[in-house]
Parts: sequence; structure tokens; C-alpha cells
Amino acid sequence: MNETVADRSYLTEQETHLSESSGTPAPSAVPGTQRPGGRTAKVRRAVLDATGEALAAGGFHTLNLDRIAAAAGVGKTTVYRRWGSPVGLVADLLADMAEQSVPAADTGSLAGDLRANAALVRETLTDPRMGAVFRAVIAAAACDGECARALNGFYRTRLAAWAPVARRAEARGELPPGTDPLELLRAVSAPLYYRFAVTHEELTEADAERAVTAALAAAAAGAYAG
Amino acid sequence: MNETVADRSYLTEQETHLSESSGTPAPSAVPGTQRPGGRTAKVRRAVLDATGEALAAGGFHTLNLDRIAAAAGVGKTTVYRRWGSPVGLVADLLADMAEQSVPAADTGSLAGDLRANAALVRETLTDPRMGAVFRAVIAAAACDGECARALNGFYRTRLAAWAPVARRAEARGELPPGTDPLELLRAVSAPLYYRFAVTHEELTEADAERAVTAALAAAAAGAYAG
Repeated sequence: MNETVADRSYLTEQETHLSESSGTPAPSAVPGTQRPGGRTAKVRRAVLDATGEALAAGGFHTLNLDRIAAAAGVGKTTVYRRWGSPVGLVADLLADMAEQSVPAADTGSLAGDLRANAALVRETLTDPRMGAVFRAVIAAAACDGECARALNGFYRTRLAAWAPVARRAEARGELPPGTDPLELLRAVSAPLYYRFAVTHEELTEADAERAVTAALAAAAAGAYAG
Repeated sequence: MNETVADRSYLTEQETHLSESSGTPAPSAVPGTQRPGGRTAKVRRAVLDATGEALAAGGFHTLNLDRIAAAAGVGKTTVYRRWGSPVGLVADLLADMAEQSVPAADTGSLAGDLRANAALVRETLTDPRMGAVFRAVIAAAACDGECARALNGFYRTRLAAWAPVARRAEARGELPPGTDPLELLRAVSAPLYYRFAVTHEELTEADAERAVTAALAAAAAGAYAG
């Protein structure tokens, strides 16, 4: 339940590194490259890991394809051909993060599921490495339309993956009929991201708990229905 | 009531330009320059207007002190001495925006005041020029600690200016005793900024109305008290 996108990413990285010859191939999300397989998947993993490290260390404006190729141990030509630009790297990293998105909680109660969601968001944003990656992609999206579309896609996938939480709660009679699952989930995330990316205020467990309490009260009053 | 930070900024700019010799001098917020007066205030106005234009046009990473000096019709030496760096320009622009912050609404009801606040936020973020300025300062804050502190200061000023809305509502019995004014105001802003700066989703009047409805319901349930 407390596993974060960050933890999952580390795990996948370690698995890839530890099982060089037996790793399950991940399908490539780069359009035009329809050759999923061990080598392609490993190259992508190495390049995206290096991209995440570079974003966390220096931000979007320091991303450099030559340095990513060197850090990933991959030929420059491959990196230029498959990703083309720093924007291409960020867009593919976000697609990868969406693919690895942690499955929605199913604790048996709406409050429990939303608490798990708020904890996941808070732990990801306050994790030193993943927080830095999110700061970098939020900044990249503010500067570049393609990064903005990729970030929008990441959250669309993330929200859709957690929508069943609201549908199950409505079926259990915990939510007014017609509650919009995405609005409920946005209500939990928004106060946490607002502190993190806009006002630059501390992000505590009490903030996560308050976001859940407020979302539950607003939902019960029908603020997200109809 | 519908006047935005953006409108106010335009107004102040026009007033300054139209009354070159009679404008009320604004105190300088730059530490170390304790000579408020017509000339100093006009130089600052011209430089900050040029900074806003440059941020809206190209973002933080294109800010260049030589070009700001040229656009403002001010000597390079003055700009380098008073602001020192692109970060110095952004920090002073945010201080200026905070100084010009629109006074809080006082419509006689909490719902009316929060609607005015949500409309102000939405109109500012969807205004082509001010939206671009906010995107640029949010990106700058993600990349630079001094910009982050300046943006934090802007919102601290903005939230404090609107806190009386909650205090008056509590005195009228519209809020549970002990409601935290800042948490209530953050709850109105957060869903709007989340769409604008994080998920890059459309920001409609319905979104602003939903933010108010949800904040009122959560506040009534005591989510921001104690």
C-alpha cells in the first residue's frame, strides 16, 4: 500500500540490472519502433533511468542527449534516432512512469483507499529523487507543449487507474450516485501538488490527511456529482 | 469584483505611462536601494514590465538582462546593479505583484467572497499574458530556490490579504469556530492551479464553481478547523 511510483521504479531498475539476460521485455512506447524485445527494452530502460537521474540532478534545461547516451552506455546514434531531443526523452519517461503506475488500492473503504492514494502522492513528491523528477517535468511542461501533453497523459492514466476506487465506493453506497470519480481523485491530489509545485510549502502527513477529509466531505455533500 | 491581478497590473502600467510627471512614487522593494521616488519607481516599473513581457513571450530561460535593459529603455549598468540576474528580476516581479494584490472581496457572504476569489484566480490563469507569466514563474521556481522563495512569498501575501474573508464569515456564523482561513483559501485555489500547472487540463467556470462548492462543504464539515 505504501509502495510509491518511486519505489516501483527503483524495483524495476534493480530487476533489470540484476537479470540482464532473463528480464521480461517491456514493450517500447516510442512510435515507429515495433520491435519489443530484450535488447530494445534494456536500451530504453537504461536511457530512461539516465534521463530520470539527469532530471533529478539538474532539471530539464540541463538534459543533453550525448551525456544521456554516455551515462546509459548506449550509442549516441541510437539515442538521437529513437528520442531525438530532450523533449522526446521527457515524453517517453512520462509514458514509462504511467505504464509502471501503481495499481489502485482496494482496502474495502473509500476513506482507506483515498488515504492510500494521498500517501502515495505525498511519498512520491517528498522522495528526494522522485520529487526532483516531478519538479523537473512540471517545469518542462510549463516551457514546452509536447512535455505538457505528455504530463497530461501521465495524469490521465494515473487518474483512470484509480477511478475504480470511486466506482466501488458508489456501489457500496459510500458516495452519492453520479459522483465523478476523476473529480474526487483530483480533489485528493490538488492540495498536495499545490503546496509542492505552486506555493512551495511543506507537505506533511497532516496535509495529506486533510486533503482526504476535505474530499470525503465535499463528495458526501454532492460537490462532485452531476 | 472581477478585476484580476492582471487587470490591476495593466492599469498601474497605464497610469505610470500616462502620468510621467505626476505618478505617485512606489517604494522600491530592492534591498539596499532606499531612495524611493519618481525616477527610481519609473525605472523599476519599466524594468518589471519588460520582465513580465519577456517571461510571457519566452519563459524564464530566455530572460536576458541586456535585452530587458534595452526593452525598458534603461541603462544596462542600472539593471545589472539593481537586479543582478534573471532570478533577481523574477523575485522583484513577484514582490511587485504581491504589492499590487487585489484587496479581498467583501460581498456579505462567504460563498460570494470565495466565488470572487475563484473567479480572480481563474481569470488570471486563463488570461493569455498573465497565464504565461504564471507558467514562467512556476517553472522558474521549480528550477531555482530563490525563485521558489519569492513565489512562496507571493502566495503568503495573497493568502494573508484574503484571510479576513474567513474571519468575517466565522463571525457571521458561516464557518465552524477555529476554521483555518489559509486552509480554506488554499482549498479554493488548489484545484485550479492543479489543472493549470500540473495536469494541463482546461480551466472552466464550472471548475471554479466546483472548487468553491467543495471548499464550502469541506469547511462546513470541519475539515479546516482545529
